[in-house]
Amino acid sequence: MQERARATRRSLLEAAASLFAERGYAGTSVNDISSRSGRTSGAVYFHYASKEGIALAVVRDRFATWPELADRYTNDAVPPMDRLVALSYDIAKALAEDPVTRGGARLWAEREVINATLPDPFALWTAATTRLLAQARATGQLAPHIRPAPTARALVRAFFGLCSLTEALEGTATITARLAEWWHLTLPSLQAAPKR
Amino acid sequence: MQERARATRRSLLEAAASLFAERGYAGTSVNDISSRSGRTSGAVYFHYASKEGIALAVVRDRFATWPELADRYTNDAVPPMDRLVALSYDIAKALAEDPVTRGGARLWAEREVINATLPDPFALWTAATTRLLAQARATGQLAPHIRPAPTARALVRAFFGLCSLTEALEGTATITARLAEWWHLTLPSLQAAPKR
Repeated sequence: MQERARATRRSLLEAAASLFAERGYAGTSVNDISSRSGRTSGAVYFHYASKEGIALAVVRDRFATWPELADRYTNDAVPPMDRLVALSYDIAKALAEDPVTRGGARLWAEREVINATLPDPFALWTAATTRLLAQARATGQLAPHIRPAPTARALVRAFFGLCSLTEALEGTATITARLAEWWHLTLPSLQAAPKR
Repeated sequence: MQERARATRRSLLEAAASLFAERGYAGTSVNDISSRSGRTSGAVYFHYASKEGIALAVVRDRFATWPELADRYTNDAVPPMDRLVALSYDIAKALAEDPVTRGGARLWAEREVINATLPDPFALWTAATTRLLAQARATGQLAPHIRPAPTARALVRAFFGLCSLTEALEGTATITARLAEWWHLTLPSLQAAPKR
C-alpha cells in the first residue's frame, strides 16, 4: 500500500474508533467518521467497504490482539508472575486511555447490534495468561494447587469485569487503584510463597 | 391495589423482563409486551406509563434489590464467609436462570440507550459484602491484611465480570463451575486459615 493510502486508512480508523468509544456503534455514521477524519465518505467505503468493515478493523487493531503486546513480556529475566501483573496494568491503562482500544471494547460490548462477527479477544488473553502461569509453575513460583488453564480463564474474566465495571461506576481515573486492590486480593492465592 | 390489578401488573412485568432479556430494550416494543402477556397496550401505559417505566420496574424488582435476598444470610449460626459464598451462588443462579433478574441485567448493560436513570445494584451488593467480611473479621475468620470495604468492591466487580463474560463466551450452563474455579482462586486470600 502506498504511504498516502496507509495514512488515510489509519486516520479513518482512529476517527472511527474515537467516535465508537464516545457514541457507540449505532450513534456513529459514516458521515461522522468522514467529518472527524477530514476525509470523504468515499474514502471510508474505498478502504473499509462499510461501517461494519471499519468496526471490525477497529476491534482487530488493538482490542482483539493483545498477544502482540504480550510479546513484550517474553523477557525471561523478569519472573513470569511479575510479567503477568505488568501486562494487566498495561491493558488496564489502554482500556482507560487508548482511543482505539476503547473503541474496540465498546464495539465488543455492543456486538449484538453489529451485523458482523467480531473477534473475541478473551481466548487470546487467556492463552497468554496460561503460558505465563505455566512458566511460573516451572520455576517454582506458583502455588501447587493452582492449575494454569482454569486459573487463567477466571483471572481474565474477573480482570475485565473489574476494569469495565470500575469505568461504568467511577470513570477511568481509579482503574489503576482498583486493579491494585484486586491483585492484593488475588496474588497471594497464586504464589508459592505469598508475602502477606 | 386490588388482587386483579396486582396480577395484571405482575404479568406485564414478567412478560417485559423476558422480552428485554431475549431481545434487549430497543428490540422490544410496548406491543410485544402486550402480546406476550396477553394484556392490552393500554394496560402497559396504565400500570407503567411508558416503556421506560416498565424497564425501570424490571431493574428494581430483582437485579437492583439483592440486599433483600441478603436478609436470608443474616443467620449467625452460619459462618459469614460461608454465607458470602452461598450468596454468590444464588446470585449467579438467578443471573443464569431467573427471567426478571436477566431482564434487569441486560437493561443495565444497555443503560446508555434507555431514557431513564436505572438504579445501580453494585453499591448495595458491595455494602452487603462489606458487612459479611466485617463479621468474618470480628469472628477471626478473615486474614488480617484484608480490609472489608475495598475487598468487597473488588469482589463484587470481579464476580459480576466473571458471570457476564462467562455467559457471553460460553452461555449460562457453565457459570456455576466457573464461579467455583474463581472462589478456589480467591477464597484462600481472604481466609485467616486457608485450606489449600
